[in-house]
Amino acid sequence: MNITLQEIAGLTGGEIKGNAGLTVSGISDLKGAKETDVSFILSTKFLKNAQECPAKVIISDTLDSIEGKTVIKVKNAKAAYAKVISVFYPARKAESYISPHASISPGSKIGRDVFIDDFAAIKNGCVISDGAYIGAGVVISEDCSIGALTQINPNVTIYLGTRIGSNCIIHSGTVIGADGFGFVEDEGGLLKVPQVGRVIIGNNVEIGANCCVDRASFGATLIGNNVKIDNLVHIAHNVEIGEGTIIIAQTGISGSTKLGKYCVIGGQVGIVDHVTIGDGAKIGSQSGIPSDVEPGAMLTGTPARPVIKMRKAEVYMMKLEDLFKRVKVLEADKKS
Amino acid sequence: MNITLQEIAGLTGGEIKGNAGLTVSGISDLKGAKETDVSFILSTKFLKNAQECPAKVIISDTLDSIEGKTVIKVKNAKAAYAKVISVFYPARKAESYISPHASISPGSKIGRDVFIDDFAAIKNGCVISDGAYIGAGVVISEDCSIGALTQINPNVTIYLGTRIGSNCIIHSGTVIGADGFGFVEDEGGLLKVPQVGRVIIGNNVEIGANCCVDRASFGATLIGNNVKIDNLVHIAHNVEIGEGTIIIAQTGISGSTKLGKYCVIGGQVGIVDHVTIGDGAKIGSQSGIPSDVEPGAMLTGTPARPVIKMRKAEVYMMKLEDLFKRVKVLEADKKS
Amino acid sequence: MNITLQEIAGLTGGEIKGNAGLTVSGISDLKGAKETDVSFILSTKFLKNAQECPAKVIISDTLDSIEGKTVIKVKNAKAAYAKVISVFYPARKAESYISPHASISPGSKIGRDVFIDDFAAIKNGCVISDGAYIGAGVVISEDCSIGALTQINPNVTIYLGTRIGSNCIIHSGTVIGADGFGFVEDEGGLLKVPQVGRVIIGNNVEIGANCCVDRASFGATLIGNNVKIDNLVHIAHNVEIGEGTIIIAQTGISGSTKLGKYCVIGGQVGIVDHVTIGDGAKIGSQSGIPSDVEPGAMLTGTPARPVIKMRKAEVYMMKLEDLFKRVKVLEADKKS
Repeated sequence: MNITLQEIAGLTGGEIKGNAGLTVSGISDLKGAKETDVSFILSTKFLKNAQECPAKVIISDTLDSIEGKTVIKVKNAKAAYAKVISVFYPARKAESYISPHASISPGSKIGRDVFIDDFAAIKNGCVISDGAYIGAGVVISEDCSIGALTQINPNVTIYLGTRIGSNCIIHSGTVIGADGFGFVEDEGGLLKVPQVGRVIIGNNVEIGANCCVDRASFGATLIGNNVKIDNLVHIAHNVEIGEGTIIIAQTGISGSTKLGKYCVIGGQVGIVDHVTIGDGAKIGSQSGIPSDVEPGAMLTGTPARPVIKMRKAEVYMMKLEDLFKRVKVLEADKKS
Repeated sequence: MNITLQEIAGLTGGEIKGNAGLTVSGISDLKGAKETDVSFILSTKFLKNAQECPAKVIISDTLDSIEGKTVIKVKNAKAAYAKVISVFYPARKAESYISPHASISPGSKIGRDVFIDDFAAIKNGCVISDGAYIGAGVVISEDCSIGALTQINPNVTIYLGTRIGSNCIIHSGTVIGADGFGFVEDEGGLLKVPQVGRVIIGNNVEIGANCCVDRASFGATLIGNNVKIDNLVHIAHNVEIGEGTIIIAQTGISGSTKLGKYCVIGGQVGIVDHVTIGDGAKIGSQSGIPSDVEPGAMLTGTPARPVIKMRKAEVYMMKLEDLFKRVKVLEADKKS
Repeated sequence: MNITLQEIAGLTGGEIKGNAGLTVSGISDLKGAKETDVSFILSTKFLKNAQECPAKVIISDTLDSIEGKTVIKVKNAKAAYAKVISVFYPARKAESYISPHASISPGSKIGRDVFIDDFAAIKNGCVISDGAYIGAGVVISEDCSIGALTQINPNVTIYLGTRIGSNCIIHSGTVIGADGFGFVEDEGGLLKVPQVGRVIIGNNVEIGANCCVDRASFGATLIGNNVKIDNLVHIAHNVEIGEGTIIIAQTGISGSTKLGKYCVIGGQVGIVDHVTIGDGAKIGSQSGIPSDVEPGAMLTGTPARPVIKMRKAEVYMMKLEDLFKRVKVLEADKKS
């Protein structure tokens, strides 16, 4: 497939600086690009790589010219190349296919142009909306609904009563709606608190591989629209996550905690139960959050502190040996 | 289903304070309760929520009266509501069903009232006891045994030789009995140490979703009775976990470590290999445990210290900038 | 099966110290060994256990004699017992079996002596090489290749285009080739960056249970030969891992980071994106790596520092209360 630079400029809102007559037949990063590819530069520190890359056309949001290249100047190079990738690798089309090896309850409702792959099990009372993709080995328990064009990748497990919106992507191995972790000491033993709520996931949500989103004890664990969750993340019962929040890999959010909108939670973060994280908060990787966080706060560390304070404290901590010596000298001087 | 308050009082050992003639038709938390529900208050700080909640009947272990409500006064409100939930949401009944889409070895022994769902694979030599539930897509390898009334949820994988007791719940995606991580350097390369032990799990154990419990190198990895494990927990080979111990999400226990009885291990904790954690120890979330822990100890941090000491040290750490300045002043004074 | 001590000595390059006429019929650790087993002692601190163990034959790399035992003296006891285990528990033989319950695309190419178990789904364009084992419930998407004698355990999911070498072991629940986590802010919303690369895994690689290895955005995420990865590890898009590197459980490696050869990365470590870890580096458990690491470095902590410095800083940190008091005394003295 050959694409003209006019098409790319149109798609990305870019301006062609150089040979507007070229066409490209693929897209790649600077490392892998061929002569006929369009590539892109995300920081001027990669200028040399761009010059040495065989691609004749480079997308940039900072440079007007690169020696020997035609530049497509855009506002946001990363957004521009994401759009151009979609031209060369178009999204899966809704397709009507139901594997003879799937097990679909006659009490479920399957929309149009749905793809259901081998060994998928869809139980009674489920609604699978138009254009949804259900991968091989997926298990969807009773009374769940899957929105239009949503992709449930192979070997995902969805417990009963779960609601998933449209245009979502759930990656393999993820478990939605398992019991929240609720036990109570009773006469010396541990009594299970039955978890009778559900999970409700909005639209345009992506959840990575091998994540766990637990069902609520009562009511619902809520994942808002446009939330993006990386791999191996744990979301406990009754957590609520606001629109557009991003959670990086291996983070754990404890029960009943509320995350605001447009937060960015780093990897391997732990957040205690029953706290509120304000809109737009940014939490550094590996942080431990013991209490409420103000909107827009930038925290890091365990227990988490404002980033600038924590960075300073870390530096002072490494100078403690010296400080102890200096105090010893002062004490010795005093005695003498 | 309508339940009288006498029935609830009987079930929970509670006392009715108010209109003993009421009936309730459901149970919910304060946030979601309807007028005809029984609800519950777990702390007096939620008193306002209880007053505003439409439910006419509230379970409490601290309050004798709430304006406009009938109170059921109990010893332990959480235990009481756990019991009442079970009335409205009774546990799964043992049910005799074997999916025509399951693959069950003729060399396995299947008890009475067993439920085996679609695409479950049960291999030669397995024993599935009375009333067990085997979810869709579960794989149970050769020579395993599953106890009575135990639930193995969809897409769980159980490696050969595993023993699981009765009344257990294993959540989806969990892997029991994969090889322990054992390699030895030999002439410059890494030689795999074959892992020829197994996993033995007691009774009344619950294991969350996407956990890993590795088989022993020799002998057995042991999970005691009444142990409760949250999601995404890693239990390495030859670990032993004592009765009634609780492990929160994303914690990892390294090889051959022994946890005592009734310990509480927070989330995202790491414990090194070959150490012993005494009975009743409590380990704070995100702690790193480098050595043996005394029975009843309360530790936190990396490396873990007694909670009170660690909390103080964290506070002092954030005042270091000030301390460095004060020492500088003292030094300057000395010179002058 | 009875094995002579001459056979064990031959296999392990060991020397028999004692009764060379004995035979053994099994192998176990000191704790579980029977009289007719060969056992092994890995440290002289277990001497008493060895003496009390019923096994008549003990492998050691430090002791020439143990009272009442015949010792097989070797260079490396752990390597020796790994070899002897393989005699009593021989590795799985390649076996020709294709379950009637598997779904195999006619457009895939299946080698000789391949084992494909129940409910495995193998899609169009895949190549499954000679002697490979594909467990129950495994899903292998389009255009993947699996090398000779490689074991893909039950319920593993492999996304399209993945290449896995020979003699690998992938444990259950692991997901290879899910989308890397790539989003870009565009006009206020989050735009998904399509992930169009793949995962390439070398030979003799072992990957534990419930891991995630994401596909590259462009090009390939690369796992070198002889890499050994424990459970619940997250490998992000475009990561490259050098030959012979070991990664312990629950560690996360962020996008485009390069690990050198023969590194040892502890458990629950986090490494940021776009950094380079030099050959032979050793990173302590729970460390956070914010930047490049020199070859051979030994680091620990968050942010990681040389091990010796960090251990000292941790000790000083716990003495801060005392230091604050001492400085206060100095200040008081000055005033008086």
